Order: sequence, then C-alpha cells, then structure tokens
Amino acid sequence: MSNNGNAIVAQSGGPTAVINNSVCGVVETWLKSASGKIYGGISGIKGILAGDIIDLEQQEKSIIAGLRYTPGAGIFSCRHKVSQADQERLVDIFKKLDIRYFFYNGGNDSMDTAHKTYQAAQAAGWDLQVIGIPKTIDNDLPFTDHSPGYGSAAKYIAATVRETGIDLESVYTKNKVTVLEAMGRDAGWLTAAGALSKRWDDEAPHLIYLPETPFYTERFLGDVEQVYKKLGYCYVVVSEGIADEQGNYLSASETQDAFGHAQLSGAGMVLKNVVERELGIKARCNTLGTTQRAAAHFASRVDAEEAYMVGSAAVQYALSGKTGVMVTIERRGNDPYSSAAGEVALEKVANIERKFPMEWINEARNYVMPEFTRYALPLLSGEVSVPMKDGLPDYVRLDTSRGRVNLEE
Amino acid sequence: MSNNGNAIVAQSGGPTAVINNSVCGVVETWLKSASGKIYGGISGIKGILAGDIIDLEQQEKSIIAGLRYTPGAGIFSCRHKVSQADQERLVDIFKKLDIRYFFYNGGNDSMDTAHKTYQAAQAAGWDLQVIGIPKTIDNDLPFTDHSPGYGSAAKYIAATVRETGIDLESVYTKNKVTVLEAMGRDAGWLTAAGALSKRWDDEAPHLIYLPETPFYTERFLGDVEQVYKKLGYCYVVVSEGIADEQGNYLSASETQDAFGHAQLSGAGMVLKNVVERELGIKARCNTLGTTQRAAAHFASRVDAEEAYMVGSAAVQYALSGKTGVMVTIERRGNDPYSSAAGEVALEKVANIERKFPMEWINEARNYVMPEFTRYALPLLSGEVSVPMKDGLPDYVRLDTSRGRVNLEE
Repeated sequence: MSNNGNAIVAQSGGPTAVINNSVCGVVETWLKSASGKIYGGISGIKGILAGDIIDLEQQEKSIIAGLRYTPGAGIFSCRHKVSQADQERLVDIFKKLDIRYFFYNGGNDSMDTAHKTYQAAQAAGWDLQVIGIPKTIDNDLPFTDHSPGYGSAAKYIAATVRETGIDLESVYTKNKVTVLEAMGRDAGWLTAAGALSKRWDDEAPHLIYLPETPFYTERFLGDVEQVYKKLGYCYVVVSEGIADEQGNYLSASETQDAFGHAQLSGAGMVLKNVVERELGIKARCNTLGTTQRAAAHFASRVDAEEAYMVGSAAVQYALSGKTGVMVTIERRGNDPYSSAAGEVALEKVANIERKFPMEWINEARNYVMPEFTRYALPLLSGEVSVPMKDGLPDYVRLDTSRGRVNLEE
Repeated sequence: MSNNGNAIVAQSGGPTAVINNSVCGVVETWLKSASGKIYGGISGIKGILAGDIIDLEQQEKSIIAGLRYTPGAGIFSCRHKVSQADQERLVDIFKKLDIRYFFYNGGNDSMDTAHKTYQAAQAAGWDLQVIGIPKTIDNDLPFTDHSPGYGSAAKYIAATVRETGIDLESVYTKNKVTVLEAMGRDAGWLTAAGALSKRWDDEAPHLIYLPETPFYTERFLGDVEQVYKKLGYCYVVVSEGIADEQGNYLSASETQDAFGHAQLSGAGMVLKNVVERELGIKARCNTLGTTQRAAAHFASRVDAEEAYMVGSAAVQYALSGKTGVMVTIERRGNDPYSSAAGEVALEKVANIERKFPMEWINEARNYVMPEFTRYALPLLSGEVSVPMKDGLPDYVRLDTSRGRVNLEE
C-alpha cells in the first residue's frame, strides 16, 4: 500500500441516478489500495472551501454500500465557479490536510474546476494528483463514448415514453396529443432517448425535436397534423432547449444559473398550447424535470457498473501517478456490449459540450436515425436491485456529523 | 359449467398501471367457470356500439397473461356519455350476440354507464347480469375502501417525491424549491400520496396542497418562506386542481411564453413562477401528467392482485346471479394488511365522488395527517415483475384483428 498522503472526493453539479456508484468506487478502491485517509468534501468545492470535510472511512459500511443504489449527490454537490482566491485557498486546505489526491465527480463545468485546481496546485508547488470522474445525464462530455448517468436517464425516459405512449393510444378520446419534455438544454441526447422506446413503425414516439436544429413552429404543426391524420393521436418528445433560428428559446425565463446559463422550463407546455390553439386538438404535457435524473428505482445496471468503474479507475490512475486527466469510457464491443476505462487531459474536456451528431438527425429534423439506437440501446441494459421498505425504495443518507475534520487544529 | 349465454368485458376512462389485471381476472375466471364466449368490447361502450367486438379466447394466451403487467387500457377505452338511443342499441347488440353478462371496468362515469345499461336491459326485458369493476388512480369511488389503480399511482408518486426530494436536498444551489404537480382535479388522494415518502421530519415533502380546501397564494408563499428559512430548500406537492375560494382554478391563470403568447400553465408551473417572482427563490416544476397512471414498471403488487381479484369476483358474482352492482374492496386487516371483495349497488355509486377526508388535512391546510399514511401505505406493498427486453419493459399489445365478431351475420 502506498502511503503518500490523503485523498479527497467531492461531487459537483446536477446528480444522476447512479452518480454515487462513482463515490463508492473511489472509497472502496482507495481503502483497498492506499493507507491514507479518504476525505469527502461535503457539497463539492464550496463545502471544501468552507471546511465542510469528513473522513468517509468513519461512515457505517452499510451507508457507503447503500450509496450504490441511492440517487441525489450522496456526499452533496454544488454549482460554484471557482475564483483565483478560491483556488489558492483550496490548495492551502489540501496542504493542511496533506491531501495529495483530488477526485472531482461532475460534468463540463466541474472538469473546468478540476483543471483550475490542478493548475493552482502546480503553481503553488504542491504535488497533487487531480482526476476528473465524469457524470452527466446530458451525455455531453467529449472524449468519452458516453457519460455515466446517461444510460439510466435514457432508460427511464424510454420506459416512460413507452408507458405513456401505450396509455395515449389506448383511450379513445379527444385528448390525443402528448408532449413529453426532456432535459438537455443544448444537447439532444436525452430527448433522442425517447426513440429507444419504439418497437414498431406506428408506436410512440412519432416526433422528436432536438436543440441541435432550429425549431419552426409551423413545420412542427404540420408534422403533428400529418401523424394525427394517419393515427388519430400523436406523441411528441421535445428538448427543454428547443429554440428558433435566432437562438431564442421557445420558453426562456429571465433567470440564470450560477454559470450564466438561462434557466429553462416549459417548452413542452408551450407546444401543448400551440397544438390546442392552432390545430384544435387537445393535448397533454408531461414535464419530467428532475425525475429523469433521480429515478434510481429504474436505473440501468450497465450504467451503474460503469459509474463504479470510473470511480475505481480514478483511484488506480492517481496511485499510478497520473494527474490532470478525466477518466473516460471506451466502448470495446457492441454485441455483446463491453467497455473499459480510458483517459483524456482535463484541459481538453473543460467547458466543451458534445452535441448530438447532426448525421443522426433525419432530414425532416423531426426524428433520429437508427444509428443512434445502435449506440444507445446497450447502455440501458439490466436493472439495479434496490432494497424496499414499506413499498418504497429505502435509500440511505450520509451522516455528515461523523468524522468531521477540524481545520483550525 | 353454466351455459347461460355469453359475456362481454370493456374498459372505460383513463387507464391505471394495473387496470388490465381486472380484464385478466374476468377472462381467466370466465374461461374456468362458464362455457359461453367471453367477448371484449374494443374502446369501451363506443366500440361496442360500433360493433368493434372480438372473441378474447382467440388471443394468444401469452397476450392475455401479458396484460397483467401492461399499462394503458389493454382492450382500449373511451370517454363517452351514453344516450337513450345508445342504450337501446347496446341491448340490441347484446341480444344479437346472446350476451347475458356485461362487465364494465371504469370509474365514476363508467359506473353511471353500467347502471344505465342495466336499466335499459331491464326495460327491454333482456336478462343481463351487469357488474361494475372499479378502477381509478384518483381513488374517488365511494363505498370501496380504495380503488384498484390508486396504490400503484401512489407508490410511483411517493417514490418520485423521495427521489427528487433527495436530489433537491443534495445540490447546494439557488435552485431550491421543487413543485411536483399530481393528478386529481377534485380529490386530493394522489397529491396526498407524496406524504408517504417522508421518513423523518425534515425529509421531503414539506408542503402539500389538496383541492379539498381553498388555495391562498399569500399563505402558500408564507409557508414556503418558513420552510426555506429553516432548511434552505423546500419541496411542495400540489394537486392540478387547486383553486381559490371562488373555485377559480390556479391553472387557469395565464403566463406568457418567450413570444409573448399567453399560455395556460399547469398549477405547478404557476406556483414555480410565483415563488420565483415573489420570493426571489429559483424553483423547478415536475409535472407528472400521464406518467403516474402508466408506470407499470413500478406497480404495487397488492394493487395488481386486488385489480385481478375484483375482475375475478365480478365473474363469480355474475354467475351467482348478482346484477346491478359494483365490486368493492373491503379492508379486513391492516397489520398484516388483507382485503376481500365486496359489493355495492351501481345506483349508489354512479357519479358520486369521494373526496379526501377533511379530518385528514392538517389545520394549516398545508399537509396531511398520519391517519392517511396508516390508510395508504399498505396499498403500496410489493412489486410486479415485468419481463424486460433490451433494457425496457416488454409490454404486450392486443391483436384486435383476431376473433372479430360480425354483427351483420
């Protein structure tokens, strides 16, 4: 066992259904391979800066193991853009706690934070192995075949489209257009997942609109009318981030998140209203919101195992001397599906979004191509067993009062 | 085996996750107990009137069995108010096909239809055993402890609140109010189910607003502020049907989309906007829509078994000479939970809605009482195994081209 100081792991950004598998992978692999402490930064960088740090080895083993099926950010997360002063303070804290390994579990913005921390440590002459661990339901991280969290969200969306599509078809009524709004402000991966539901030609969904191409309301109405004339009902999946040619979101609110992104909601509701007003067909809107990133009761086993794998690989990489990299997932085979961990420099990843490929969108810009299904379907495979109590998933909660670090000592 | 003519079963109104268990219960019990045919009316009364009738025995056995885990109305459903002429035509069709048993699977309106059909047959001197089979996620049918379909919808809502509640708490951000909108325009049973999620005092949900009491926006904002001050976040569950003292639905308030079009939002979206505007706290809205009545991948086993039981009991009642009744569920024990089939006259049930009891709503009108949890929690017990294919539930579809009846013969 190497004894080169201590490690810290933290989470950042929006959770996924399987994100905590990565923390488990880090903690369990660290405890097997190294003798230093494994700290948890509570609420990401923001918590570390506030000295909100605990020794994860002091948690009950059942809590750490239970994180494998628990949604939300198990060691809590934040959205925080690090300043120069933040970075310097971070390195000071790392020095104080003899932290030589920093594992940051997040998406694009978080990889930027990890990269800046890596640079700050270098500037301060503090040897620090910084490894980014990917997660995002949006699947928009570059240089990785896919991101942990996407498979489970896609599985939930596809199952929901299938279920509500069957529901829509089965009731002879005038309530015959259903619009399902999926997350994915700038990248259409989650919205496209609706297509994984379709088993035969006329099965839902019938129309899919991604944020990668401009949205034209007139064309949309024509598309809906055509399907409706043929089938008597129509199922539409739409991204929260669809926008017109000028980039105006179909439904934009004036608020912004910590990174200056416009905060969206309601594209689906706008379309429901347009259909009712312009076509005179009654419509419904299902807005999945945070359910699609939290539905651990229906997570993908492939996804959960890969989330664990990238956490475990992060520790192995760090202990072998690697730093300034994000762990990636490399697809090794598709039939049967298999994958392995890879790596990419953090500086390449930071703040780059991987859009849905234009060649996987059909010419009419209202559906996705079969190549997408071949890519995505294996990621949905298998289920995760969740202990149930009183008919509900018995998720765990970290005890943040245990093993607290005192930075004043 | 009695040989007293044929039977027909049909479904009506909005589906539930377990509604098709009742059809299975009817078909399988009929085929064991009687020698006549068991017809299916495709798309409820409307389909029967159009002669859209099939012999269900000619379906593949795997399709009938597969209905037990398939959402939507498996033999299709309608929303249709029967006229006097409809009733007479219905009895004519029953005579033509020697139908002596009519099983109608639906909610309040459907029981009215069943009752009227019963009366029309009596008036025409046609011996007809009419049995109503209850279903509704809304749980608003009277004279039954609860309605098949409610337990599964409640389980899905409660699990979703737990998952998205954990998600909300786990991210340190300003996005700290989540509003979840549940169905149930006039009765708060589904909305109340959010409370089943709570395991300890501060766990989500924090506030619940039912349609049984008037909604005051000012009080709501005060409630949210109080929770927010204590915890730094707040989780609200709200019925789609909340209304002010004058009965004006909140969802009727207008908002504007990015293009300046007025749009009708859901009640949840209205509250999200109110919180952001008046309290300056960022909020999210999850609108479950039809997902809550279609989520067969997470149905309650107790609910599924009871849905089968009421279908099976309907056949037994009819064959023993009963008519003009709806099957009910009688609770026999709570610990362990047990139930049995009972009955009530259709004329008593028709068009009566059972509201959520006022004594189960707290004094502040922003949460429900523990008595509700004792009542509802047993209904969520157990899961239903659904065959999976390519990582998704492999639901079945009736072959409506098989065994079609020709009324012209």
